[in-house]
Amino acid sequence: MPNTHDPRPIGVFDSGIGGLTSVRELFRVLPRETVLYFGDTARVPYGAKSKETVTRFSFEIARFLVKQDVKCLLVACNTASSHALDALQRQLDIPVVGVIEPAAQAAVTASPHGQIGVIGTVGTVGSAAYPHAIDRLVPGAHVISQACPLFVPLAEEGMLDHPATRLIAEEYLRELRASTIESLILGCTHYPLLAPMIHELMGPAVTLIDSGAEAARSLATLLDQRGQLAAHGHPEHRFFLSDEPRNFKRIAQTFLGGELPPVHVVDQTDVPWFERAHP
Amino acid sequence: MPNTHDPRPIGVFDSGIGGLTSVRELFRVLPRETVLYFGDTARVPYGAKSKETVTRFSFEIARFLVKQDVKCLLVACNTASSHALDALQRQLDIPVVGVIEPAAQAAVTASPHGQIGVIGTVGTVGSAAYPHAIDRLVPGAHVISQACPLFVPLAEEGMLDHPATRLIAEEYLRELRASTIESLILGCTHYPLLAPMIHELMGPAVTLIDSGAEAARSLATLLDQRGQLAAHGHPEHRFFLSDEPRNFKRIAQTFLGGELPPVHVVDQTDVPWFERAHP
Repeated sequence: MPNTHDPRPIGVFDSGIGGLTSVRELFRVLPRETVLYFGDTARVPYGAKSKETVTRFSFEIARFLVKQDVKCLLVACNTASSHALDALQRQLDIPVVGVIEPAAQAAVTASPHGQIGVIGTVGTVGSAAYPHAIDRLVPGAHVISQACPLFVPLAEEGMLDHPATRLIAEEYLRELRASTIESLILGCTHYPLLAPMIHELMGPAVTLIDSGAEAARSLATLLDQRGQLAAHGHPEHRFFLSDEPRNFKRIAQTFLGGELPPVHVVDQTDVPWFERAHP
Repeated sequence: MPNTHDPRPIGVFDSGIGGLTSVRELFRVLPRETVLYFGDTARVPYGAKSKETVTRFSFEIARFLVKQDVKCLLVACNTASSHALDALQRQLDIPVVGVIEPAAQAAVTASPHGQIGVIGTVGTVGSAAYPHAIDRLVPGAHVISQACPLFVPLAEEGMLDHPATRLIAEEYLRELRASTIESLILGCTHYPLLAPMIHELMGPAVTLIDSGAEAARSLATLLDQRGQLAAHGHPEHRFFLSDEPRNFKRIAQTFLGGELPPVHVVDQTDVPWFERAHP
């Protein structure tokens, strides 16, 4: 029989600060839980980096959070979920939830005819993690994928309604707009910031799926099923970054939609990610 | 009396592969020299990261190259030169050349009235390294600086002549175009790829300064003065990357303008940058 309560924190990580969109949803659906967030701002972005490197970074961060005694891990980064989730689930002793399965499930639910679009980084799209996940849920579903590598820097520059962003979005979304998709997975934590423009370009018939928010809700369900929710509501969130970038606070508050918890900048001398090389 | 020849290789490093523009010029002016290049593709870009983090990364890479017995170090990355050059020069026993001084000198030479523009990453522009260097050469020179954070991702996507790139460039360069600058320092290794568009926008009266190429020529002069050029021409170049990104070869050949030497991907288990934390 599972514990009926578990006061330990929820661990969340992302390549940077986009994962705060997941945290925002966690705060909403699980207001009693403490969140430990790690953003790898010293090495961001992961989008175009190799599977091997993204997997190595993911394990370093996961081990750091496990040492902080988290009860579960939410991989808020789509690229890390695409490349490293299977390995993390195999090798860690706590439940690990990524963004791919929850977003795929939401897209399938929103697409009665199985016509689904996916946008993401070159790593996420190249991995085919979304088409595989959708195919496991609805064999024969039709999935159109498109990498949108400039959406992250454009969002970080706050160019959410800029003519240049629109030109680039029109190019990226051309094939998807000409298709008959019923839903479009925003397969990167930054893309919800561009959702108004994407919605306008795709039209009201296409449901946009926020992968980070879906993952947060999926994690809430899992913790409930396992009897691992916190009993009391005294959350003491902590955010860890591997670097404090210049315009961090402005961007972070955009993603989180509110005030930031205490932020700790940790460099490699503070975290255990040297241990693998120096056992 | 200095040695009259030194067969050891020249070390070059950059946050990624943009530093190959410096290597291209080294190959041209010093065809006998062996070049060891390190591109930190696992942690690229440096442009918006903090001085502390960029300095830490720079020392890790410098130590790796020093262990390969390089005779000098060229810091091809403008952001690393802006944040870390002074510390590298103080703490390493070999000559260290950055891009800032050589490009500042070239701009001063090309600007009889001391009217100079600088474009770069937010880190380079925020550091004020270029205005300080120019002021040391020509006290009272007038310098206008502008960060252009989207130029790197646009160049990496190959959007060198795209309408969106033009819209963004027009915004970034608005103040510079309205000014009376005589030269414009391309203070980032990626910007030479955008030089045709920048030249068209700035007009023929503004001389564009390629910081990477200036630094390579400056290093050649220094090695000659110190009697440290190689005597014979049997170069065996080696390129090290901390990650092999997806479209590496296409982009690398764009920067280098030719075939690549052998490329070695090294991860942190292969390089000595753990040693500081585990002395």
